[in-house]
Amino acid sequence: MRDVYHEQLGQLVDRLAGMSRMVSESMERATFAISESDLDVACHIVADHARLEQAWSDAEHYAFAILALQSPVATDLRVVLAAIHATKSLARMGSLTVHMAEAVQRRHPHPVVPQLLMPRFAEMGRIAIWLAAMAGQVIVTRDLTFARTLATVDEEMDDLHRTLFTVIDYQEWAYGTAAAVDVTLLSRLYERFADHAVSVARHSTYAVTGRPSFDDVAVATSR
Amino acid sequence: MRDVYHEQLGQLVDRLAGMSRMVSESMERATFAISESDLDVACHIVADHARLEQAWSDAEHYAFAILALQSPVATDLRVVLAAIHATKSLARMGSLTVHMAEAVQRRHPHPVVPQLLMPRFAEMGRIAIWLAAMAGQVIVTRDLTFARTLATVDEEMDDLHRTLFTVIDYQEWAYGTAAAVDVTLLSRLYERFADHAVSVARHSTYAVTGRPSFDDVAVATSR
Repeated sequence: MRDVYHEQLGQLVDRLAGMSRMVSESMERATFAISESDLDVACHIVADHARLEQAWSDAEHYAFAILALQSPVATDLRVVLAAIHATKSLARMGSLTVHMAEAVQRRHPHPVVPQLLMPRFAEMGRIAIWLAAMAGQVIVTRDLTFARTLATVDEEMDDLHRTLFTVIDYQEWAYGTAAAVDVTLLSRLYERFADHAVSVARHSTYAVTGRPSFDDVAVATSR
Repeated sequence: MRDVYHEQLGQLVDRLAGMSRMVSESMERATFAISESDLDVACHIVADHARLEQAWSDAEHYAFAILALQSPVATDLRVVLAAIHATKSLARMGSLTVHMAEAVQRRHPHPVVPQLLMPRFAEMGRIAIWLAAMAGQVIVTRDLTFARTLATVDEEMDDLHRTLFTVIDYQEWAYGTAAAVDVTLLSRLYERFADHAVSVARHSTYAVTGRPSFDDVAVATSR
């Protein structure tokens, strides 16, 4: 039974790692679609979302089945609960990239982000892609140092999100109200995406530390 | 052991019902702080957040303990998993009201919402307060009809959020870019709050239906 459990757990981890790859790729495409106002890529992200939701649904069912059939306790239980948390967060990260794609669709053929802010969004995209991929690594390795690195890099994302308001508020903003609203919402989607990646990493290491690290999670959630 | 389990489960449900009351009250205060630009009330919401986070942490620990000690299966397992989901969503709803309070603090003594939009935000607040309270009712009763009513009412919230962009985009907007950004982010906080309430209700009835109702959840999450 222990062998069956560990085999099933390994398969669950594989599914989650696959989901984090899908989410990282979707973020890469979303950032490209924003920077190039590429309608095809945006539509592709929206259409592809069903595949991610299926992966989510499958992984969650699989985790529930392990709980019901193996009744794991202690560390084993924590690993499965962390996996259930990860499925939800990864699905949500996918949804956030869909929202980005929809913003591109809505403004096409006009760019959703003014040229002035493009380097800022390219940087947010770079960080987000990396965080999603690293969250997958932490799911597999449960490496605490990795998880802490994610939290540190997430601070860069928070800084970028926070300072955007300064640009819109005080500098000469020549792009109109609608553009200000667009970039604010987009920036918030990047910031939430990053928070979810950190949350996945923290929950995955909770299996190792034995603490749900609510403080950490609270910080990630309430920001 | 079954008796112990049901007693513990009853206590868990009580904790969640208490959390949903706290969250509904916090939303009521946030909406008041927005409408009256009341700094004291805003500060009170922020200060009170620690109490909600403690309730969240306690409820989640309690649910984990039930899983570990009782190893519930089938419906019992689903009830505990739904409870774990509810703790996270309710904690997040509380965080969203804190973000609202912070927006009031940031703009004080100026109102964060222009007079023109105040009735719209009062209505969003009314819906949000009701949804949070009703989510608590569904946790206790697991009543499917209630859960469906929440989803229907949430559509009103979505309409209010969606049509806000029309006001900012096309009508004469005399309040400046910063105000447009503020109301957009605020409106999104209300909309997310409502989504989480619906998600709590749907997960709570999943224990009855035996289906995690991923489709429903996906809709709530991706909106």
